Parts: sequence; structure tokens; C-alpha cells
Amino acid sequence: MQIAIVLFDRFTALDAVGTYEMLCNIPGAETVFVAERPGPVRNDRGGLTLIAEKPLAGVTAPDVVVVPGGPGQVALMDNEELLDWLRTVHVTSTWTTSVCTGSLLLAAAGLLEGRRATSHWLALDDLAAYGAEPTGERVVTDGRIITAAGVSAGIDMGLTLVGEIAGDQYAQMVQLGTEYDPQPPYDAGSPRKAPAEVVDTLRAMKESILR
Amino acid sequence: MQIAIVLFDRFTALDAVGTYEMLCNIPGAETVFVAERPGPVRNDRGGLTLIAEKPLAGVTAPDVVVVPGGPGQVALMDNEELLDWLRTVHVTSTWTTSVCTGSLLLAAAGLLEGRRATSHWLALDDLAAYGAEPTGERVVTDGRIITAAGVSAGIDMGLTLVGEIAGDQYAQMVQLGTEYDPQPPYDAGSPRKAPAEVVDTLRAMKESILR
Repeated sequence: MQIAIVLFDRFTALDAVGTYEMLCNIPGAETVFVAERPGPVRNDRGGLTLIAEKPLAGVTAPDVVVVPGGPGQVALMDNEELLDWLRTVHVTSTWTTSVCTGSLLLAAAGLLEGRRATSHWLALDDLAAYGAEPTGERVVTDGRIITAAGVSAGIDMGLTLVGEIAGDQYAQMVQLGTEYDPQPPYDAGSPRKAPAEVVDTLRAMKESILR
Repeated sequence: MQIAIVLFDRFTALDAVGTYEMLCNIPGAETVFVAERPGPVRNDRGGLTLIAEKPLAGVTAPDVVVVPGGPGQVALMDNEELLDWLRTVHVTSTWTTSVCTGSLLLAAAGLLEGRRATSHWLALDDLAAYGAEPTGERVVTDGRIITAAGVSAGIDMGLTLVGEIAGDQYAQMVQLGTEYDPQPPYDAGSPRKAPAEVVDTLRAMKESILR
């Protein structure tokens, strides 16, 4: 089983690595970070660099595809090399997935037309503009496409996928191994829970957060 | 404000990146990944490579120090270059922190003697052997040292630290921005919650998980 995680300039690190940390535990799975060109890829903050081991063209039939989000996604919405790759690998993948605004890339590739899907809460309207049906859920499965909400939701999506592929008990082992018993010190992780002032501040910053 | 995150061969990726993704949002903070030698550093699974931008010797007075865990930690327990660096930077740091078995490195450096601290649940006994007082809590603050439990606990630790440094409202903005509203598909993230069979299986695998 091959799991391909797409990197691009100005991706969000936790989108990719949270999902990776769950999926890399699947027995017999090989994970590979891919990008248009192999080599170092910087994140959205510029302070973190991950290595892409292979070019997109070098990974032609992954079983699982993971597309993270991040402000760099904006510049890729008409990148035909990437969009063609997504369309092609989706034909044979078992699961095609995204985290955060990575779903906008799946949408731009035409893969979410008429499908239930999610994205970062600030990007749900953009997702609808591409013909998807956005939901407020954290992890959305529609057929063999799974989309996750913003950034940290990739962990929940990854663990869900471990369960689908390796079974519930194995997924529980992964959860215990990564001690994923979250205890956030605040309860402000969704626009339904955060104080109105906090939600309004982020809404006003939407452009700088997503682009 | 400078935040130094230590990398070493066979670190656990989410330990470092979960914490990073929270801390990189602190206003005016510069994050830097450091290692004995700058350059590519491979994780415990071998499938992920992060770049260390600076050598330990090039970062002498960080305000915040983050030490992730991972099986590679075992080979560093008598690495005097790293342990000396930890002792030295701790003299002037505002916060010295660890995730998962990274606390064993702080302990080996003598920084946890008589202090309340935590680690991966499978490593709490090892922590006690170094003179620390292990607790079952997920994030433990003792003076200006903060230790986090296994892997994913770095996210909770990081968000706690954002609150300490930038205030509660700012930390809530970071939580909402990263949509950290965890909804794990299982409730098996701690040995108190996971099915006994799952706990027993991981206990039996302790050596291969931690080393």
C-alpha cells in the first residue's frame, strides 16, 4: 500500500504531518511526500521545511492520496499539472483525501462536484462555489473521498482512515500509541464554540489567513 | 522572541510539528529547528524528513526550547553536546519544554530532578528513574518547565504556552485558526480509556515503540 502526501510551497505543516502521523502506522504502508519537483518545500510560516522525496510524475498509482491545505493552495487552483495528477490518481486510488483548504484543490480538479465535503471553516463558501456541498462536520466521507476541516482535523481524518483500512482495534492501538486523548486548554476550536469576538476577529482576517 | 525546536535522527514528527503549529503563531516569535548538525533529519518511521536550519551551537539563548521525543532519544541519553546545550539554554530560557519521551532528555540533563513532569505513558517509569516525579496529567507545568505526554499532547502543550505568552484570547484565536476542536473517532487515547486488550498489546510492544 502506498500513501502519497502532496506538498507545495506555503502548505500548512500540521495538515500534512498530523495526518501522516496516523497513516504511517498502517501495516505494510509506505508513505511518500510528493511535490511538483522533489526537494525542500517550505510551509506557510516559512520556518519549517519538509523534503518531498518524489515528483508527482514519479508516483502514478498511490492507494491513498492526501492533499493538505495552506495559503499556497491559492496559487495552484489553475495548475494543470497538479490538477491532472489529482484526476489521474483518483481513478485508481482507494481513498482520495484532503485536509483544510486542500479540499479546494480536489474541487478545482472537479472531484467534489455534487459531493458532500468540508474544508477550513473560513473556506466553506469557497468550496460551495466549486459545486461541492459543504457540511459543518469535521470529517466527511462521500464515496471514497474523505475531506477534513481545518488543520488539526487531519488527525481525526487520519485515524478514521486507519480504522477503515486496518480495523477499529488497530486504530485504537494507533490512538493509544500517539496518546491522542486531546485536552485543549480552551474550548474555542470551532466557530460554534469560540467567543463571538474571537470568531469576528478571524473572519475579518480571512484573506490573510487563507491567502 | 526565539523558539528553538530540537531535531534528532528518529524523532517523532508530530511531537515537533504539533507543538510548532501552535507556537509559530505567537506574535513576533521566530521559530528555528536546531540539531547537532544542520541539514535533513529523518523521523522514526524514516518516511519524513525535516530540515534543521541551525546547529545547536548556533542558537545560544532561545526564549523557548522544545524537545520532542521519539525512539532516537535513547541514543542521546549520554550525548554530552546535547545535554550541555540543554543545561546552558535552560539558564536563560523563559520556558523549557518537552513532548513525549523528550522529557527523558531533559531528565538526563538533570533538569527534572525533584520536579513534577510527564512523558509518553509507556515511559513514566523511566522518567521516575531519573529523579523526576511523574504524573498522569497531559501537560505538566513545574516552574518554567512544561512537559507533555505522548506525541499528540504537544498540541495541548503548545496551545497552553501560547496562552501563557500571548494571553487567553490570543490562544483562542490560534485554536480557532487551527480548528482544534478534536473529535477522535475512538476513545482510546489513554491507558485509562482504551480497551484492556489494546493497552496490553502496546505494553508488550514497549521496547519496539520506545526504542
